[in-house]
Amino acid sequence: MKEPVFLEGVVTLDRTGQVPLAEQIYRGFRNAVRSGLLRSGTRLPATRRLAQSLGVGRNTVNVAYDLLQAEGIVVLRPGAAAQIADELSLEGEGAKPVAPPLVTGLSARGKRLSENLRGPGRSEQHIAFQPGAPALDCFPYEDWARCLRRAARLERGDTMLYRHYAGIPALRRQLVDHLAIERGVRATPDQILITSSMQASLFLLAQALADPGDEAWLEEPGYIGARTAFHTAGLTIRPMAVDRDGADPKTIVPSGNRSRLIYVTPSHQFPFGARMPLARRLVLLEQAGKAGAVVLEDDYDSEFLFEGRPVAALYGLAEEGRVVYMSTFSKSLMPGLRIAYCVVPECLAERLSQGVRNMGCAANVQTQAALAHFMDSGGYRKHLKTIMQIYLERGSALVAALKNRLGDRISVEAPAGNVQVTLAFRQPVDDVAISAAMHRHGFSVSPLSSYYVGENAKPGLVIGFAGASMKEIETGVQTLARLLDDAERTSKAAFVERRPG
Amino acid sequence: MKEPVFLEGVVTLDRTGQVPLAEQIYRGFRNAVRSGLLRSGTRLPATRRLAQSLGVGRNTVNVAYDLLQAEGIVVLRPGAAAQIADELSLEGEGAKPVAPPLVTGLSARGKRLSENLRGPGRSEQHIAFQPGAPALDCFPYEDWARCLRRAARLERGDTMLYRHYAGIPALRRQLVDHLAIERGVRATPDQILITSSMQASLFLLAQALADPGDEAWLEEPGYIGARTAFHTAGLTIRPMAVDRDGADPKTIVPSGNRSRLIYVTPSHQFPFGARMPLARRLVLLEQAGKAGAVVLEDDYDSEFLFEGRPVAALYGLAEEGRVVYMSTFSKSLMPGLRIAYCVVPECLAERLSQGVRNMGCAANVQTQAALAHFMDSGGYRKHLKTIMQIYLERGSALVAALKNRLGDRISVEAPAGNVQVTLAFRQPVDDVAISAAMHRHGFSVSPLSSYYVGENAKPGLVIGFAGASMKEIETGVQTLARLLDDAERTSKAAFVERRPG
Repeated sequence: MKEPVFLEGVVTLDRTGQVPLAEQIYRGFRNAVRSGLLRSGTRLPATRRLAQSLGVGRNTVNVAYDLLQAEGIVVLRPGAAAQIADELSLEGEGAKPVAPPLVTGLSARGKRLSENLRGPGRSEQHIAFQPGAPALDCFPYEDWARCLRRAARLERGDTMLYRHYAGIPALRRQLVDHLAIERGVRATPDQILITSSMQASLFLLAQALADPGDEAWLEEPGYIGARTAFHTAGLTIRPMAVDRDGADPKTIVPSGNRSRLIYVTPSHQFPFGARMPLARRLVLLEQAGKAGAVVLEDDYDSEFLFEGRPVAALYGLAEEGRVVYMSTFSKSLMPGLRIAYCVVPECLAERLSQGVRNMGCAANVQTQAALAHFMDSGGYRKHLKTIMQIYLERGSALVAALKNRLGDRISVEAPAGNVQVTLAFRQPVDDVAISAAMHRHGFSVSPLSSYYVGENAKPGLVIGFAGASMKEIETGVQTLARLLDDAERTSKAAFVERRPG
Repeated sequence: MKEPVFLEGVVTLDRTGQVPLAEQIYRGFRNAVRSGLLRSGTRLPATRRLAQSLGVGRNTVNVAYDLLQAEGIVVLRPGAAAQIADELSLEGEGAKPVAPPLVTGLSARGKRLSENLRGPGRSEQHIAFQPGAPALDCFPYEDWARCLRRAARLERGDTMLYRHYAGIPALRRQLVDHLAIERGVRATPDQILITSSMQASLFLLAQALADPGDEAWLEEPGYIGARTAFHTAGLTIRPMAVDRDGADPKTIVPSGNRSRLIYVTPSHQFPFGARMPLARRLVLLEQAGKAGAVVLEDDYDSEFLFEGRPVAALYGLAEEGRVVYMSTFSKSLMPGLRIAYCVVPECLAERLSQGVRNMGCAANVQTQAALAHFMDSGGYRKHLKTIMQIYLERGSALVAALKNRLGDRISVEAPAGNVQVTLAFRQPVDDVAISAAMHRHGFSVSPLSSYYVGENAKPGLVIGFAGASMKEIETGVQTLARLLDDAERTSKAAFVERRPG
């Protein structure tokens, strides 16, 4: 019996218990065959002998040999020595190592799909002032944990299998009632699509309603998530001016038949906060009709505007099929729940629901069931009341501190809702540099200029207040004032240096 | 004071309490303005008077008027009657009803994105034998509910905010260990992307790694979810023959440089169940290298193969960047958790991770945290052992019943794992018709022919056994036998009829 002398070198055992010994023996042989060290017909040592030389139980070697046989690497015959399979040499021209492959890269589409339009990522440490983030300290962890546990125990039916991709019936029904009462949106449960995020809704709608090269209108400045979805879909992005009444639809210039989408935040313009008046809403719908475009109404924070009741959604003013209504639980509850929804035209509901399935962006079922119960039991409404009060306090404190410290260097208005305020600098300031400096001090503000697509970006900062403590507000605004002083001194010095002789 | 006589008709109150009365009054006026019934400058009745005539409190009318003012529809001046705003008439050419819009349809891409390649949907009632579904009666509801509640109570940090889109660190670390020990897959945590489903992973990779018109190779027959992802991405789908050793890579004919993706299920070919031998795996990698394609290895059920240990993943045999490894918790736990993952090349990890964020298909954070704990505490391993035993029993019972009742009319093999078996008919049978008939009897089998892309589809059935009771297995197979008898009689009768008289 010919037995290769290097056999023990083939198998190097790691006895830390991480990988079963049989598995290691099996892998050693497999690699040896693959690298050409062991060839077809080579006989393997008897199990007893290999077990002895490796210091393992005989059964361990048996298991390894079984694995090798199962994979067609080794042939075991009763009464004969195990040997490397013959067939290997027939089909096994590939048994020599393959040439190192070129690293395969992204497709042209993939480059767009994986681009980061938001600028540098946030640090992994906790930092204050993140725009768009709700307060970690206001989430009803105990109540929610109970809802979730309840859902996990009760939800034992087919909802947990491959169905209801666009949302479970219980949550859709809750949303139908909620939307009718709170937002003036009338819809059937089938028209409500529940997805894993606002971003998934935007991605789906951009892809499903427009082809590459089509135009999408975006508020200027506007939401980067919408810009990302349109960019990803290969659309041509056209900016729509924003003034004190929100997006100005008169700046929409239809070009041929290619305007397919108009993205707006009429309840509370992102990031400035304007509420769009009725007259303008009607003009917007008319412009959309002329252009043959669908309006995507992002109603991300209307549930907790501070002053009075929010106005009804644009959706309720429009003819069927003209407006898609979109919202999320990221602001009113938590982004980590990964749950958002949209209301789509009846005639497209079935197809777009299949789109959610095909894209794979369905929301976790137990979270949906927990949320349906949380809404039904009144917990959600109670939570909204709580955060509205706290956010109003924090937002007012931030704006007071900003006005107090920065006075006429900025313009900023008391927040009408939401989780952030936007300030504009009255003088030219490099807001990207200021944001980066703030970030180094532990404050995650965003430069206003990054929310613009076109050339006429204004400098400013978007500052999240929802999760900020009074201490963080005080320190953050102090830090900002100091950084602005430094920047001003530096730029004056540079100006002096640059003056002729 | 001119006061329109129809004013009371403008507002029709519904007193069931569904919508606040003030909201209804506000809506009534808004609609009246919109429809042109009320024009700019029209004075509104005094609040007291309107309150009387509607039979509501005066404060209710005040709230409604405040809402109308907030939206710019009404102007309130101290000491003067409220009136419809002037501005409305200026900007308000649009205040006349807009023309009914054309129903805006799907884009060309949207039609693909929302297509259903799986055939008619399943009924909402519970039916047995659904392929791919795990057992509802084996899920550890109580243990899982505790893990979920624990996660919801403990996960109070920044993981719940806008970060970790491609998976929380705790679960990624668990998966690194799990994959190394169980599947021979070595990866860093950054290479692991956690998504909302296998479908989302496939969608992302198809879009990110191939452009429209590029080729993707698919097992024939093969997984419809992969076909859907490729179809949705506008790829040209090319079939790869399948035999008793799984997909045959020799049938891959590289055409230019356009083959970008090769989708395989080497551990357990879907739907037939073959395990691909080592020699063939090496040929597959070589062919992929020649074609410049990435292999998508779908390892959907390797964690619970019944016989012996599963062989290591193809991933471990390949050079960096050649294979993307994909798996899901839909089979080992539940589809409703909406959680899956893939292992991508290091050089693409950051971009693809951004792709998950841009697509919005992140998984629920509390579920991720619960799963990390479930794996760490040994609960997951214990659960796998349990279902392996039960699935083996159910699968064996189904195959025994099929062989017993249908004998030589079918060929079927004992399941080597997984949650379904595939039988092939030895005679020509309309498997779509048989499946539809079975469905009407409450058995959700799938026609084998629907898993083929090309012309040479074989008739057969894919039958899920994981969730089937012994009674359902018995009744289901009886029903199938009877339906086959009926079909045979009908086709013989038709043959007799068609014979020349």
